[in-house]
Amino acid sequence: MTSAGEGADPGASTTVDAETPATVVEVVGTGLIGTSVGLAATAAGHQVLLRDADPTHVAHAVERGAGQAASDSGVAPALVVVAVPPSVAAEVVAESLQRYPYATVTDVCSVKGPVVTAVAASGLPTGRYVPGHPMAGRETSGPGAATVDLFRGRPWLISPDRATDSAHVAKLVAFVESLGAIPQYLPSAEHDRMVALTSHTPQVVSSLMGARLAAAAAPDVAVVGQGLRDVMRLAGSDAALWREILTANAAEVLPVLKGFASDLAAVVADVELAAQVDADRPIASGGAAASGEAIERMLREGNAGAARLPAKHGGEAADYEEIEVEIPDTPGSLGSLFLAAGEAGINLEDVRIEHTVGRLMAIAHLYVLPDNATRLRGALRAGGWPVLES
Amino acid sequence: MTSAGEGADPGASTTVDAETPATVVEVVGTGLIGTSVGLAATAAGHQVLLRDADPTHVAHAVERGAGQAASDSGVAPALVVVAVPPSVAAEVVAESLQRYPYATVTDVCSVKGPVVTAVAASGLPTGRYVPGHPMAGRETSGPGAATVDLFRGRPWLISPDRATDSAHVAKLVAFVESLGAIPQYLPSAEHDRMVALTSHTPQVVSSLMGARLAAAAAPDVAVVGQGLRDVMRLAGSDAALWREILTANAAEVLPVLKGFASDLAAVVADVELAAQVDADRPIASGGAAASGEAIERMLREGNAGAARLPAKHGGEAADYEEIEVEIPDTPGSLGSLFLAAGEAGINLEDVRIEHTVGRLMAIAHLYVLPDNATRLRGALRAGGWPVLES
Repeated sequence: MTSAGEGADPGASTTVDAETPATVVEVVGTGLIGTSVGLAATAAGHQVLLRDADPTHVAHAVERGAGQAASDSGVAPALVVVAVPPSVAAEVVAESLQRYPYATVTDVCSVKGPVVTAVAASGLPTGRYVPGHPMAGRETSGPGAATVDLFRGRPWLISPDRATDSAHVAKLVAFVESLGAIPQYLPSAEHDRMVALTSHTPQVVSSLMGARLAAAAAPDVAVVGQGLRDVMRLAGSDAALWREILTANAAEVLPVLKGFASDLAAVVADVELAAQVDADRPIASGGAAASGEAIERMLREGNAGAARLPAKHGGEAADYEEIEVEIPDTPGSLGSLFLAAGEAGINLEDVRIEHTVGRLMAIAHLYVLPDNATRLRGALRAGGWPVLES
Repeated sequence: MTSAGEGADPGASTTVDAETPATVVEVVGTGLIGTSVGLAATAAGHQVLLRDADPTHVAHAVERGAGQAASDSGVAPALVVVAVPPSVAAEVVAESLQRYPYATVTDVCSVKGPVVTAVAASGLPTGRYVPGHPMAGRETSGPGAATVDLFRGRPWLISPDRATDSAHVAKLVAFVESLGAIPQYLPSAEHDRMVALTSHTPQVVSSLMGARLAAAAAPDVAVVGQGLRDVMRLAGSDAALWREILTANAAEVLPVLKGFASDLAAVVADVELAAQVDADRPIASGGAAASGEAIERMLREGNAGAARLPAKHGGEAADYEEIEVEIPDTPGSLGSLFLAAGEAGINLEDVRIEHTVGRLMAIAHLYVLPDNATRLRGALRAGGWPVLES
């Protein structure tokens, strides 16, 4: 990879200044994330240079309006965003540090430790390398799936360490904010341990549940409740991408999966015991109640974990009151319902729609602060809404 | 357990007639489900008699307005709803068949095979026993948690077999419909296999994920995405109740959990290999890519399972188009958004709210039929809504 900008005086356009939002950005790797960075950065007024091992990807990204080909630019970037797969990210970061001796260089890998370690192993001074991870994605991939708003309102984790120069951190923070994302600091080791637990393991679990559905007979999936749908919401994710993520973060994912497998083995042993008891003694004798201790222990630990989920805007687990309302499946019915809540001056903290298989109707679950529940129930009932008793 | 109605002529009030909705119903077991049946049946105009091994539970249910104590009634029921725990259900069904020789008898266990087998083993003629399973529940339990609308709009599975008298099936169907539920037929063996896959296994998986959170260090659960929340939505369920359900359906749950465990073991082995490769060769060399085949295979099977989820009203998997809109967290903002969709005459097929930790803002995901997507995007943008690019 060569750049027309290599011979230019890099100092001219690479002043690190968090106050000046417009800058020259080179994006390396024009897949979903890279092209989205290009679209968002262009919209924010930055000059964007695009680079990819596959020139047709660059052409596609240019056509989408994500920027211009780096080879045509004649300028050196102040910031390089490395958006290539985890397996080659460190190599490209190192190349970029060498090519542009004044630029801030970041990457977008969802696993940070291995990239940081490999960049450090390159022997280059790493003060200008600021590891990053935008927590945004889609179930589709490639430059065609990119969107200008992919990062808007979503966290962008930043993992500087003692070697990282604070001026370059500020540069990245300003850039990330200009894309509408929310920068948050997290050391790389903590980052990888956290995403192993809260992102990578849920993906594995959701996919494994999906695999059970794939293996099932057709009638067994005829009536499906919301619980299964929720557990399986991640099962449609991109397989090749997640293979890379899971292998890259293998060291952190492994203990979580092993803990899960160990708990599961205890449950399976207990279920097996219950199945044998059932076969020997019919249920009426209460024989099955003799087993189940490991099952119940696991369920209680699940309760404890549920209580640790932070509230929607961070902080402690919230205790919202739930109001259920029957809604007909006709245009505008959801709109009228939410308008009625708004007219009562009550904010909905959350909303969930429960669909009923076989009927054109649904139940809306509205979550409000406990102090507001009685007032909202009254207002909705007064407006003729069938609020379910609670 | 004795009833004042035992001596009465049961023929007088037990004519099986699906056309006449008002009937005398005895509910045995006044926990969450039984008391809710009592509340809903009373509201529907039925006369409800309540019975429970614990007289304080009956008193509580009477106080809630769920009916009168069976011992005070002096009449025999036309329908008995057995709402006791799975371990004693068959015994109580058999007792009820003997006590009321003309009544329709049903139960509400979420596992059907063991109850049906045990009732048949009693040697009683089982033509009047119609196995049932209302697919409704709450995360709280006991008569205090009961609601008159618990069954409204939800499926009530009914599992008659060749021994079941069709007039008694019709009686139960009419009753279930009078409570607002949607009766659906499903043979008991299929029922148990289906719920093992679509309800019981998701509960185990969700709880096991919760157990990992319970075991984690506090910083690891600070930033939590919607994916983890969805996978864990069932983790707060009642542990004692689910212990009974899982042990009662052990024979059907076991092969599904074993399949899950087997897939997981293959993934763990692959992740372990990747972790070793990582340790030997840094990621920059691409070493990790050498493993991951089992991981990717599992992810692809998960994709196949996701494609098998039925559409919200049954039938084939639906392919809705998703529209994302940024919404401020202020009173009425969700209402205005949905009203705008309604004014455009477009039905929302589904809604999901994505919360952003650390910011008073959310992203609403609206799902519409593909034909409606462009029109809705246009209408919302014309109304000033920040529709994210897709």
